[in-house]
Amino acid sequence: MNAKIQQLRGLLQEISDLHYISSLLGWDQQTYMPPGGAEARGNQLALIERLAHERGTSPELGKLLEELKPLAATLEPDSDDARLIKVTARDFEKATRVPSSHIVEFTQTTTLAQQAWVEARQKSDFSIFRPHLEKIVALRQEYASFFPNFEHPYDALLDDFEPGMKTEEVKTIFDSIRPKQVELIRAIASKPQVDDAFLHQSFDVSRQWSFGEEVITQFGYDWKRGRQDKAAHPFTTEFGINDVRITTRVDANYLNPMLFGTMHECGHALYGQGVAPELERTGLERGASLAVHESQSRLWENLVGRSLPFWKHFYPRLQQVFPQLSGIPLTKFYKGINKVHPSFIRVEADEATYNLHIMLRLEIEIALLEGKVLVKDLPDVWNGKMQEYLGVTPPNDEKGVLQDIHWSGGMIGYFSTYALGNLISAQIWEKINLDMPDLNEQIRSGKFEALLAWLREKIHRHGAKFEPQELVQRVTGSKIDPAAYIRYLTKKFGEIYDL
Amino acid sequence: MNAKIQQLRGLLQEISDLHYISSLLGWDQQTYMPPGGAEARGNQLALIERLAHERGTSPELGKLLEELKPLAATLEPDSDDARLIKVTARDFEKATRVPSSHIVEFTQTTTLAQQAWVEARQKSDFSIFRPHLEKIVALRQEYASFFPNFEHPYDALLDDFEPGMKTEEVKTIFDSIRPKQVELIRAIASKPQVDDAFLHQSFDVSRQWSFGEEVITQFGYDWKRGRQDKAAHPFTTEFGINDVRITTRVDANYLNPMLFGTMHECGHALYGQGVAPELERTGLERGASLAVHESQSRLWENLVGRSLPFWKHFYPRLQQVFPQLSGIPLTKFYKGINKVHPSFIRVEADEATYNLHIMLRLEIEIALLEGKVLVKDLPDVWNGKMQEYLGVTPPNDEKGVLQDIHWSGGMIGYFSTYALGNLISAQIWEKINLDMPDLNEQIRSGKFEALLAWLREKIHRHGAKFEPQELVQRVTGSKIDPAAYIRYLTKKFGEIYDL
Repeated sequence: MNAKIQQLRGLLQEISDLHYISSLLGWDQQTYMPPGGAEARGNQLALIERLAHERGTSPELGKLLEELKPLAATLEPDSDDARLIKVTARDFEKATRVPSSHIVEFTQTTTLAQQAWVEARQKSDFSIFRPHLEKIVALRQEYASFFPNFEHPYDALLDDFEPGMKTEEVKTIFDSIRPKQVELIRAIASKPQVDDAFLHQSFDVSRQWSFGEEVITQFGYDWKRGRQDKAAHPFTTEFGINDVRITTRVDANYLNPMLFGTMHECGHALYGQGVAPELERTGLERGASLAVHESQSRLWENLVGRSLPFWKHFYPRLQQVFPQLSGIPLTKFYKGINKVHPSFIRVEADEATYNLHIMLRLEIEIALLEGKVLVKDLPDVWNGKMQEYLGVTPPNDEKGVLQDIHWSGGMIGYFSTYALGNLISAQIWEKINLDMPDLNEQIRSGKFEALLAWLREKIHRHGAKFEPQELVQRVTGSKIDPAAYIRYLTKKFGEIYDL
Repeated sequence: MNAKIQQLRGLLQEISDLHYISSLLGWDQQTYMPPGGAEARGNQLALIERLAHERGTSPELGKLLEELKPLAATLEPDSDDARLIKVTARDFEKATRVPSSHIVEFTQTTTLAQQAWVEARQKSDFSIFRPHLEKIVALRQEYASFFPNFEHPYDALLDDFEPGMKTEEVKTIFDSIRPKQVELIRAIASKPQVDDAFLHQSFDVSRQWSFGEEVITQFGYDWKRGRQDKAAHPFTTEFGINDVRITTRVDANYLNPMLFGTMHECGHALYGQGVAPELERTGLERGASLAVHESQSRLWENLVGRSLPFWKHFYPRLQQVFPQLSGIPLTKFYKGINKVHPSFIRVEADEATYNLHIMLRLEIEIALLEGKVLVKDLPDVWNGKMQEYLGVTPPNDEKGVLQDIHWSGGMIGYFSTYALGNLISAQIWEKINLDMPDLNEQIRSGKFEALLAWLREKIHRHGAKFEPQELVQRVTGSKIDPAAYIRYLTKKFGEIYDL
């Protein structure tokens, strides 16, 4: 291997290790850390992140990347080395545009903002959070100003989560599906509602846990290279491609959070466990983007886990574990877990309404950045859009504008990745079904090896080598196209609600 | 505060945070990490330790310590700042004498040696471990050679664990107690043995766990600033003085490991939780030495936890939790948990024989360093001393020279701290009883607040401000003196065995 590439990999190993260490500090914080540990943990996280940032913006790295440019031009463009140089140069270029003073201020602001958000949400009082959010919006505007090369200020933010993706692309995609989703929801609302009361009863927590483990073991989650713990807000995290951990939460009186949460996080983890070993400790072992990552979690949670073939296999087992379901026929169960019901809270939303929650946030974020909406008017703007898209108005700010943690952490530009993930998942699903005509049959038999192998080969192993649009194009033959998702929703809910 | 001291504290904060991070990486490795995570974890630990070492030996720190010398001379000698400068300068002076090349070789050697030790122990074949141990002994000899200022090569090693302590002191102490302990054990052996069969039966694991929690909660362990997890080899670790965690192991068919292991680790943790907040992130928040730390764990495990007053309070509760003990009277239970029985394995040894296991190791370590015993002869030397001191000969090397992990990790110079901890615990105990004449009465009533407050005031809060001998002198009025431990053993086992 070229000595300079070797040198580059050496620098990246250290950065990657620091990120893994930071992830462990975060994992422990959300799973096992006693309350007393919070302050010290903040110091530890700040230190590791500073060290990682210093190394990611070091003159040594910059010089090396400069020296590698001529070599990069001679490499096969899709080779690991060519992509490694390209992605690292892109990250370096972005990171070095942001002054340290901005990062310090951003960290301090969001630390305070998160505390304020917790209090505001508890009291359902937006005014507590408002000054913090105003400062965060100003900081995000400033951040965008460091990237005058982007067309739209929101592009700079989006690019951190979806490399190469433009605001205009996202808006176009969302504009094309919004009327169709609104129309679908209205059609469903005119039909008799399905019954899901049986999901809301007492389910033994440890049995739920074991059932979830059973399902994801069958999906192919490798327990030698991961584990599952409890967390209030489930997440997946990686300390290496051979240590990819998931967390889940279990509600003693409602089956869905464990069931679909576990499968969702497993989808993320299968991606992490499937990255090619050659990419470990290069920075390329992360996924292509948040949306591509979400496409994997959504695929296992929804396309697989909320499908009829899946439950043809697993429902008898679930009934065995929970005899209280023995009187509920499969069809009724299937309809129940797929009940469409416009609600206030994004994380509880069904497949048909979920994207509308995201569109609302995207529109608000863009308007905030452009200065067309002011923070002080947010509760009204929020409630107005909820009524317009979902036909419901939150009774208070806790169930409205204060429901999500993201903005308090400065994560403006993040939400759209959730909806894009849904779209990509359906698009990939159509392609898989073309390649594997007996996929439904396999799922009905509880067989997931071929599905996982397909995802590994086409998506997982590449890590972050390709930008999201490029990867989707390679896998499906076209860029992100919402048509597949609309076809999926229309067919699925057409059958369930007899539209 | 003086600007230079401020600057010193800033540098030390970062070093301290790195040590805490390293501890978290280690804790996770031994509690929750899936097997696949091992290799990446090795990289992460190596990185953090390198960063900590770089900072602990940086020219910046050296220059600052030099500049602080005149100031240090003007400070009140026992003030935090004076001690901080003194301890940091001592650590810096020691650390900078060791070349990086030695550290790298030591790390590589011990990594391989630990793997070899595991295999050697499994196969009970010393020859697998022998070449590794030979290299380790040579490296420890080299390490000692970096410190020509010490009188004896073993002093340099001991000093890392027991600052200021000399080999000659330890030898003198051990020489004075060896004949008395051997004599005591012989006297016990001539008496009828006590019965402890009732401790070896089936005890529900989760009930054991809860009982252990109940006991240490009453001791004063602060669960808001700690937690307990399972580990194969129990240990206590700290990620800040407000996050001090213990681990324990539970044997489903033997009560002692959970019972005394939990109390032992709690003793360490109470020390960690009791350090003065002003010392956090200075490096002084660690304990005075391993022996002083062990004095705390042994005090709670043995002086409290294996005492009759303690069980007068807790035995009815234990019988409630485990009704299979209801036919066993308190006196029989008390004798059973204190059964003296010369055995092969140090960690399973009772209070009367424990120190002899340590003395054997100390003598061997010194002889190895001096070149008076060769590694190849170790099994024979070991078995000979076992027969001489304890009257038993291990049936194989697994139960003999291969039983402990320490040497494979390069920890030569460590063992004596265990025995010193026992001695200090008894010495402190006599002093506490003078200060608190109703101590036994309090323990009999399940009251530990005053005991803990005494330990906090006299020992815990000072962290590493004082060297071990200095601290023992301050607390008890004399340096480490084995007489108290001999008095304790003679009285306790005289009663139990009717000597």
